[in-house]
Amino acid sequence: MGEFELLARLRERLPPAGARVLLGSGDDAAVSVPGGATATSVDALVDGVHFRRDRASLAEIGRKALGAALSDLAAMGAEAGEAYIAIGVPPDLGEDGCLELFDGIAAVAAATGTTLAGGDVTRAPVLTLVATVVGHADRPDELVGRGGAEPGDVLVLSGEIGGAAAGLLLLERTELGATISPAAAGRLRRRQLEATPRLGTGQALAAAGAHAMIDLSDGLGGDGGHLAAASGAGLRIDAAALPLAPGVSEVAAAAGRDPLELATAGGEDYELLAALPAERLADARRRTREAGEAELTAVGEVVAGAGVEIRLPGGGTLAPAGFDQLR
Amino acid sequence: MGEFELLARLRERLPPAGARVLLGSGDDAAVSVPGGATATSVDALVDGVHFRRDRASLAEIGRKALGAALSDLAAMGAEAGEAYIAIGVPPDLGEDGCLELFDGIAAVAAATGTTLAGGDVTRAPVLTLVATVVGHADRPDELVGRGGAEPGDVLVLSGEIGGAAAGLLLLERTELGATISPAAAGRLRRRQLEATPRLGTGQALAAAGAHAMIDLSDGLGGDGGHLAAASGAGLRIDAAALPLAPGVSEVAAAAGRDPLELATAGGEDYELLAALPAERLADARRRTREAGEAELTAVGEVVAGAGVEIRLPGGGTLAPAGFDQLR
Repeated sequence: MGEFELLARLRERLPPAGARVLLGSGDDAAVSVPGGATATSVDALVDGVHFRRDRASLAEIGRKALGAALSDLAAMGAEAGEAYIAIGVPPDLGEDGCLELFDGIAAVAAATGTTLAGGDVTRAPVLTLVATVVGHADRPDELVGRGGAEPGDVLVLSGEIGGAAAGLLLLERTELGATISPAAAGRLRRRQLEATPRLGTGQALAAAGAHAMIDLSDGLGGDGGHLAAASGAGLRIDAAALPLAPGVSEVAAAAGRDPLELATAGGEDYELLAALPAERLADARRRTREAGEAELTAVGEVVAGAGVEIRLPGGGTLAPAGFDQLR
Repeated sequence: MGEFELLARLRERLPPAGARVLLGSGDDAAVSVPGGATATSVDALVDGVHFRRDRASLAEIGRKALGAALSDLAAMGAEAGEAYIAIGVPPDLGEDGCLELFDGIAAVAAATGTTLAGGDVTRAPVLTLVATVVGHADRPDELVGRGGAEPGDVLVLSGEIGGAAAGLLLLERTELGATISPAAAGRLRRRQLEATPRLGTGQALAAAGAHAMIDLSDGLGGDGGHLAAASGAGLRIDAAALPLAPGVSEVAAAAGRDPLELATAGGEDYELLAALPAERLADARRRTREAGEAELTAVGEVVAGAGVEIRLPGGGTLAPAGFDQLR
């Protein structure tokens, strides 16, 4: 099957385009009329670096590629708009594989209201996915960056953390699954294999007046450090308050690992960490509940200073290492 | 060097952001205020598929990656706006190599007024570059798609063609260089190694009222076929009128190849093919001359029917095969 024929087959599977997109996939470029402000982010996933084809289905890989990219838009408080996907197809991935991969991408697009407006398909030595996503807001000041957290702000976290790291342990060491129920193990594995962008939560936090926000792709320690550095402030986090995903403690114990390490140094939970004025917390909780994605947990506060300090229940602190390696 | 440190080094080399970009590289997403209409395209280049590191410098590869992507915006008649670049870095490409590659990208950004507004750097088995580019126009109807060519329209081509294919022959078979002057051979090789987007020419043709436009990345036969199919019309091209780049005939003869084949089936010239009403030709020539990039040549006309027919000087026709293989 040639490139143009494959692209035509992929285009047949596209959900209908959003109202902003006047000309979608198939011309030299897609044409859209954004209005207001746009937030744009690009995210690359490479086989052997970000996923392994022997551990995840092609549909899961497709879902994770678009979901992880959209998570950056969630962290800006943007509404999902358009996605442009480049796929590098290895020699052993046939037409059916491309279509399965694409169905995973299209499922996330449909679930999030994202228009797949363009892309490129090329040969490559290993499966490679690059998703560029464009989100929207009526005005630029509705979008929330990483800077802007102020001493006294309360730190909130959406959903639960540590699940993706525990899911990775379960995928690597299947014997660990015996320590928890099959349903709980399945949820943790999905947490690793998929990436659910908290788009509604991000918009709720932005509307509630969040000062700064970031998504946890590298982990609470690393991403919290980015937020702190961009804001010129420090983060003080209460370890006892961290919302660990069910089963994380059991899997960590069985693996001889500290559950707090999974929760703070493990990445890929794709939850949101936001700093907001304490008097906005109730409104943020209400709006987040209405979005229906996840509950908010207050986990600490912004302080004068720098870096991330995690206060342990028995006294003492942990300064999680920043995550800085090329992957 | 870690990812964040490398990104910080790359950001130091960025030219200043354009007026539309409020928040550039370094947050979860870039924030811009587009206004009017946007044209967005994504283009992937993979080592061993689209280029070879033993034939091109890293700066040349960087220039080609962004230039080829911007060529799609030229083909829409859009003004260059922002670029988002994902780079897959292989194990043997060190920090200096990344910076050299990035300098090539930044040079094209500076020359075209493109803001490098975001990106992603990841490990990969071979060097991989994916450029997503966003162009702008005041109104969507100022952008020119592939459809819209009408029987009776004159077909024009910018610049010269066949040069990139001849340059590839010279890179593959260095002995062929003896048939032309070193300066001419150098120009042909650069034609293959670089990709100069005809952004000014595209805007000139759009302003002159072009009905349809495409850039020649796959070759006149293949890309002309796309324009014909999208327009529901046929293209009749006069082979004798085709503007061959200097040296193409000599290199083709020395290689035992037909120069017309290099000009119609060889890709990567990145010139523009446009269909416009005959009465707009003089205005299009004037505007294109003012853009200062390339001369226009009338090479044929749009006819009722389908496909691309190339009329040979001695009578008879050539129906170039459409280019359809995954690369």
